[in-house]
Amino acid sequence: MLHLSLIGIGTGNPKHLTLQAVEALGAQDLILIPNKGAGKDDLAGLRQAICAEVLAGVAQPPKIVEFDLPVRDPATADYRQRVDDWHDAIAEVWQATMAAHLPKGGRVGFLVWGDPSLYDSTMRIAERLRARVGMQMQVIPGITSIQALTAAHGVPLNGIGAPVQITTGRRLRDHGWPEGCDTLVIMLDGDCSFQSLEVPEEVMIHWSAYAGMENEINIAGRLSEVQAEILATRASARADHGWIMDIYLLQRLT
Amino acid sequence: MLHLSLIGIGTGNPKHLTLQAVEALGAQDLILIPNKGAGKDDLAGLRQAICAEVLAGVAQPPKIVEFDLPVRDPATADYRQRVDDWHDAIAEVWQATMAAHLPKGGRVGFLVWGDPSLYDSTMRIAERLRARVGMQMQVIPGITSIQALTAAHGVPLNGIGAPVQITTGRRLRDHGWPEGCDTLVIMLDGDCSFQSLEVPEEVMIHWSAYAGMENEINIAGRLSEVQAEILATRASARADHGWIMDIYLLQRLT
Ligand SMILES: C[S@@+](CC[C@H](N)C(=O)[O-])C[C@H]1O[C@@H](n2cnc3c(N)ncnc32)[C@H](O)[C@@H]1O
Ligand SMILES: C[S@@+](CC[C@H](N)C(=O)[O-])C[C@H]1O[C@@H](n2cnc3c(N)ncnc32)[C@H](O)[C@@H]1O
Repeated sequence: MLHLSLIGIGTGNPKHLTLQAVEALGAQDLILIPNKGAGKDDLAGLRQAICAEVLAGVAQPPKIVEFDLPVRDPATADYRQRVDDWHDAIAEVWQATMAAHLPKGGRVGFLVWGDPSLYDSTMRIAERLRARVGMQMQVIPGITSIQALTAAHGVPLNGIGAPVQITTGRRLRDHGWPEGCDTLVIMLDGDCSFQSLEVPEEVMIHWSAYAGMENEINIAGRLSEVQAEILATRASARADHGWIMDIYLLQRLT
Repeated sequence: MLHLSLIGIGTGNPKHLTLQAVEALGAQDLILIPNKGAGKDDLAGLRQAICAEVLAGVAQPPKIVEFDLPVRDPATADYRQRVDDWHDAIAEVWQATMAAHLPKGGRVGFLVWGDPSLYDSTMRIAERLRARVGMQMQVIPGITSIQALTAAHGVPLNGIGAPVQITTGRRLRDHGWPEGCDTLVIMLDGDCSFQSLEVPEEVMIHWSAYAGMENEINIAGRLSEVQAEILATRASARADHGWIMDIYLLQRLT
């Protein structure tokens, strides 16, 4: 019997780990770490470092195994289909790696960036595996990049009693500002989609890159006033590190 | 000089604490715990228990002081004004308590339920204090009840690349389902506002009370099928405990 633990680890600060996550990491037989290859936001090294630190005092530490993450097939035109196929391919690699290292079953852990429920595919891949082989699944919550963003700036996420929409850069670009909600969190935005907003002088932005990490960068202000600075800072940080992760809060001033 | 730390503690499971939160608690000179009085969701006891556990091994533990939380004045008709006045009153009690216990300044910590940025007034009250007395503020992110909910049910928060709106029971009741967003998280709902939805058979609900706590209750299914069960379970749990905190995820089936 397989038991999978999807363990939220926060957004890059090893101290984002909860006591529950620390305990869960130590209780696994096997920990699988995806390897995206150099030049990507390759966080395998950070996951290894977290494991090394957390597991230092554990009597019977889990075996830690890296596996090569399959890549999406650009030949598949349909986005949904491409993601579906990719998830299937990952589920297969997981299955093969588990069979090789844990032939009799046992506890397998994954270190999931941020929280496993937020814009992350690990849970969906696990569901695929569950459909093929019998297994149990446990989710351990983690600090999300949204919490890392608001903590970095020391600002509330929402107005008093007011709603917040969490969405993607692509949606902001394609659909504009959603109706009836003055506060947005934008994630998964490779293109600084705030540039598509028509009235930037009426919007406040709180922007963070590498939120919670050592090289965290924070810029805040009226969008019209800080937009150029964010674009330039983002471009040079990305060039320096080889990758970037950024997130921002937009508030319509009413 | 005063230094305030607003420390997210998660939603009732002491193991939701992050390593950063544990460290921050130990580094304070004074920890202030609000006392709402018996019969409320009086979590002073839980906060005291967390402090006792976390501070057990600390050489110079902070002084822990409970203060009586002022109540909102029901005579003030306007909601915003009532909240504003209340925040002012709390800031005053903080100031007096700090002056009494930390006359020369120092580090003051607050244990904030969940994450300090999400539907919580501690940061706003701290801003009021900052306007009156010089001080620095630090926010330490915590596991929110949203993460506790999705972890309890083992479900993703969002559809692939799709948006999520976080809102309140009152808004769902007064404004209906928001446009252009098929997934909602409803918080601060004393009235099971999902009852106001017109087509419950097309909505999935994942509902949790006391998420992350020992007495956690989870119910999920089509809203039309589980609605009655949630109402009955909520009423009896509330009667048993004297208070309840619940949260739910709604997904429109399309
Ligand atoms: C695939 S999603 C994963 C989100 C993650 N599960 C979470 O809970 O935050 C990746 C996106 O999260 C955001 N993100 C994650 N970590 C971040 C960080 N340290 N700083 C800024 N943004 C981050 C960025 O918007 C990025 O495009
Ligand atoms: C004043 S808000 C505070 C939210 C908190 N800052 C957070 O990060 O979750 C209180 C609301 O949060 C939700 N909530 C907080 N803790 C909860 C728990 N343990 N179980 C279910 N809902 C909870 C409920 O919707 C409740 O009405």
